[in-house]
Amino acid sequence: MAKTDDIRPKARLARGFRDVAAGDVRARAAMLAQIRAVYELYGFEPLETPALEYADALGKFLPDQDRPNEGVFSFQDEDEQWLALRYDLTAPLARFVAENFEALPKPFRRYQMGPVWRNEKPGPGRYREFIQFDADTVGSASQAADAELCMMAAEALEALGLARGDYLIKVNDRKVLDGVMESAGIDPADTRRHLTILRAIDKFDRLGADGVRFLLGKGRKDESGDFTKGAELEPRQIDLVLGYITAPAADLRAWYASVGESAAGKAGIAELEAMAALFDAAGFGPDRIQFDPSVVRGLEYYTGPVFEAALTFPVANDKGETVIFGSVAGGGRYDGLVGRFKGTEVPATGISIGVDRLLAGLAARKAGAAQNVEGPVVVLVLDQAEITSYQRMVQELRAAGIPAELYLGSSGMKAQMKYADKRRAPVAVIEGGDERAKGEVTLKDLALGAKMSADITSQDEWRKGQPAQISVKRAELVAGVRGILSRPSS
Amino acid sequence: MAKTDDIRPKARLARGFRDVAAGDVRARAAMLAQIRAVYELYGFEPLETPALEYADALGKFLPDQDRPNEGVFSFQDEDEQWLALRYDLTAPLARFVAENFEALPKPFRRYQMGPVWRNEKPGPGRYREFIQFDADTVGSASQAADAELCMMAAEALEALGLARGDYLIKVNDRKVLDGVMESAGIDPADTRRHLTILRAIDKFDRLGADGVRFLLGKGRKDESGDFTKGAELEPRQIDLVLGYITAPAADLRAWYASVGESAAGKAGIAELEAMAALFDAAGFGPDRIQFDPSVVRGLEYYTGPVFEAALTFPVANDKGETVIFGSVAGGGRYDGLVGRFKGTEVPATGISIGVDRLLAGLAARKAGAAQNVEGPVVVLVLDQAEITSYQRMVQELRAAGIPAELYLGSSGMKAQMKYADKRRAPVAVIEGGDERAKGEVTLKDLALGAKMSADITSQDEWRKGQPAQISVKRAELVAGVRGILSRPSS
Repeated sequence: MAKTDDIRPKARLARGFRDVAAGDVRARAAMLAQIRAVYELYGFEPLETPALEYADALGKFLPDQDRPNEGVFSFQDEDEQWLALRYDLTAPLARFVAENFEALPKPFRRYQMGPVWRNEKPGPGRYREFIQFDADTVGSASQAADAELCMMAAEALEALGLARGDYLIKVNDRKVLDGVMESAGIDPADTRRHLTILRAIDKFDRLGADGVRFLLGKGRKDESGDFTKGAELEPRQIDLVLGYITAPAADLRAWYASVGESAAGKAGIAELEAMAALFDAAGFGPDRIQFDPSVVRGLEYYTGPVFEAALTFPVANDKGETVIFGSVAGGGRYDGLVGRFKGTEVPATGISIGVDRLLAGLAARKAGAAQNVEGPVVVLVLDQAEITSYQRMVQELRAAGIPAELYLGSSGMKAQMKYADKRRAPVAVIEGGDERAKGEVTLKDLALGAKMSADITSQDEWRKGQPAQISVKRAELVAGVRGILSRPSS
Repeated sequence: MAKTDDIRPKARLARGFRDVAAGDVRARAAMLAQIRAVYELYGFEPLETPALEYADALGKFLPDQDRPNEGVFSFQDEDEQWLALRYDLTAPLARFVAENFEALPKPFRRYQMGPVWRNEKPGPGRYREFIQFDADTVGSASQAADAELCMMAAEALEALGLARGDYLIKVNDRKVLDGVMESAGIDPADTRRHLTILRAIDKFDRLGADGVRFLLGKGRKDESGDFTKGAELEPRQIDLVLGYITAPAADLRAWYASVGESAAGKAGIAELEAMAALFDAAGFGPDRIQFDPSVVRGLEYYTGPVFEAALTFPVANDKGETVIFGSVAGGGRYDGLVGRFKGTEVPATGISIGVDRLLAGLAARKAGAAQNVEGPVVVLVLDQAEITSYQRMVQELRAAGIPAELYLGSSGMKAQMKYADKRRAPVAVIEGGDERAKGEVTLKDLALGAKMSADITSQDEWRKGQPAQISVKRAELVAGVRGILSRPSS
C-alpha cells in the first residue's frame, strides 16, 4: 500500500453503531409523534436531560450483574470527575426529580425519548446506541399509576396501527415473586439466588417448564454445550415455583395458593387486584392486558408491579425459524430509586419502549404508514449559462409546496436522468435549446416511465412505447407537474 | 453531616449541562419541525449518524487551536479503540459520505439535527451539549449549491416568523480573504499568521476598525487588561486589510481592488458574482442576503464561500447592555473534508443552525407560537373507593381528544386543587358525595378563577366573588368541559 494511504483515516462506523437513512429516520419520527400524542393526551409532559451525567449520580442498574464493570461508557472530564453516557432514561429521571423535588408538581408525570448507550458486545440487531421512549409517574404509590401506564402503552400500540391480538400487555408483581420464594423457604437475604431464580422464570417463554426446571435445580446445558449453573433448589421448592408460573393467569385468586402465608406475596396480589379493577372499569379486557406469572423484568430495582408489552405475532428470526416477535416495552414500579438521593422513599413507576425494536415489529406487521416517500421533482440543467432560469423553475415549484431541487452536478443529461431515478423523483423537468425556443418545458413522468419499462417484455416493445412525457408551456410548469403528481399511482 | 449522607450520591447535573423542561422541549420541537419542512421542500433528506465515532474518523476541526487537546470528549472502549462524542455534524457526514460514496446519489443533499458535545469550559448560556441543525450538499462544486443553502436558510428563518430586517444572511469567500493577504504580501505558508488575521477580521463587528487595527498590528489590551498578541503586520499591510473589510459591500466590482493580481482572490470574487446572479434571479435582495467582507467563520477547513445568518435586532445582554443579537447559523464550502478519507477531492458545502441560540433569538423577538400550553384537565379523587369511576371520567375526556389525568396522589382536596394549579390545568373535575348523590359533577374553570383572583383588590371583594364553577349532569361531563375550554381567553 502506498505511504500516503497510511496517514489517511479509514472511513468507518465505530463497532456496534449504525447510520439511519432517510426512510428509517422518517418512519421513526412518525412513530415517535404518534406515541407522543397519546402520552400528551394522558397528561404526561416532555423532559430532556443531558446525555452525560456524573457517574455516581447515574449509578448503575443494568440487568447484567455478571460483569459489574461493563455496560456504561464513562470517562474523566477535565475536572477529573467521572462522567458517564446515560444507559437508560430512568436513572437521569431519578436524578432530576431528586434535584428539583420541591418545584415539581407531585405526582409528576413525564415522558422522555432519546438515545441511550451501552458499552456492551454488539450483536446482530443489537446496537450500542439505541432510542428509548419512557413514561414515568413519580410521587404516586397508587396502583392507578401503574394501571394507567399499562393502558397508555396499549393505546399507543393501537395508535400505531396494531390490532388487539397483535400485542399484549403482560403484568406481574415483584412482591408476588418474593412471596412465592418466601413461601418456598428460600432465604430472602440470598439476593444472588433470588436473581438466579428470577432469571430462570424469565426464560419460561423460551425454554418451557422443563428448561426452567433444570435452571431452578442443578443447571442446564444448552444446544451449544454451554452450561448455565442453576439455583440449586430442592425438588419441593422447584415444584412450588413451577406450580406458580404455570398456574392459570386469569384468576388472581388462584395465585394465593402459591404465596402461602407470605405477607409480601399477599400484598402483591392485592396490588394486582387493584389494577384488575381499574382495567375492568376502563374496558381493557384480556385481549389487551393479562396477568402473567412468568413476567419478571431484568432490572433489580423493581419493587411492585412489573409489566411488559409484547408483540404476539410470529416472525422469521435470523435463522429462518418462526418465532413470536416478543417484548417491545417493559417497566414497573421502583419505589427506591429516587430515595437513593433523598434518603426518604419516593414512589415511582414507569414504562420504557424500545423504539427500534417496536419499529422492526411494525415493519414486520406492515402497520403504520409507508415511509418510503418519493423524492423531490428534479429540474435538469442542460445549459449552465441558463442556471438562473432553471433555478426559477425550482423556486416556483417550491413556492407551490412541491419539493423540488436543481441538479447541482456537472454531468450530462443521461447521468442527470440516472440521478433523478436514484432520488426517486416523480418528475424530471427538462428545458433544452429546442424547448426554450418554443417557450416550453418537457415533463417526464418517471413513476409511469418505470412502470412502463417494467410492463414491457421485449426490447422491441420498449422502443415502441413512448416514455411517459409531456410538453407544456413554460408558464404552465407548476400546473403540469401538479397534473402528473395527482395521477393515481398503480 | 450524618454518616449516612456521605454514602448517598448528590443529585446534581454535570457541570455545563442542563435539563430542558416541557415548555422549551415543545418550543424546540415546533421550531425543528418548521425548519425541517423548508429543508424537505428543497429536496434535502434526513440522515442520523451515531453520537460516538472512532476519534480518528472524526478528526478534530474545532476553531480553537490554542488548546489542541481540548474540545472533544473521548475515551477508549473495551477494544482499546479511541471513541469520541461528535463535536459537530459535519465530520460525521464526511465519514458517512466517504464510507457510502458509491451508493449515494451525487450530489447528495442531506439534513441532520441532533446534539453535539464540546469538552470546553462552560459559561453563561454556553453548554457542553447543544443541538445543531445542519444541511449540506456533497458532490457539487457549483456555486448554485452554496447559493441554495443561503436562500434556504433565509426561507427557514422566515418560516419561523422572522421578518425581513429581523435577520440577514451575510456572505463572503475564503478565496477572497486569501487573495487580500496574498496581495498584501503575507506568506501563504504562514498558516498561524493567516489564522490570527482571520480572527482579527472576525472581530470587526464587535471592535470596529480601531480594535482590528491593533489586532493586525502589535496586539490589543482589552478592558479587563488581558493582552491579545497581534498579527504584527506592517502599517501598509494593515491598511490594505482594513481597506478591504471597510469597503462598500454592495458592489462586488469594488472588491477587485483589494485582491490585486491574486488569482485566488479573483476566483473568489467570481464565485460571489455567480452567487449574486442566482440571488438576483430568485428575488433574494439585500434585505435578505448581503455580501460582507468581515465574515470569516472560525473553522479552518473552509475553501470557498462562507456565510452566516445573523439576527439583526437589538437585545439586552447579561450586563443589561443593548447589543445586536448576532449569529445564529454559519457555514461554507469545505472541498477537502471528504477527501481526507478518499484521497480525491469531493466538493461540499453546508450550513449549521445553532438551535438553542436561534430559539433564544425567537423568544427575544416573540416570534413563533407561544409554547407554554395549558396542562391537562385534572379529575380530583375525593373518595379512593370510587377511583374506578373517576378513572372513567378521565377516559371519557381523553376519548374526546381532551388531555386529562387522574389525580394519583393521596392528599386531600386543597392539595389536589394546588396540584391542578401547578399543572396549569384549565379545568378541575370534582365529584364528592353530594354531587354523586345528585348524579352531577362540578367543573371548576381554573383559568377564569385565576383571572378573577388577579382582578379583585380586597379580601372582602374576593369573598363575594364566586369562584368560577358550574355543575353539570354526570353524562354531560365532556360537553361541560368542552364548553369551558372553548371560552375565549382574555
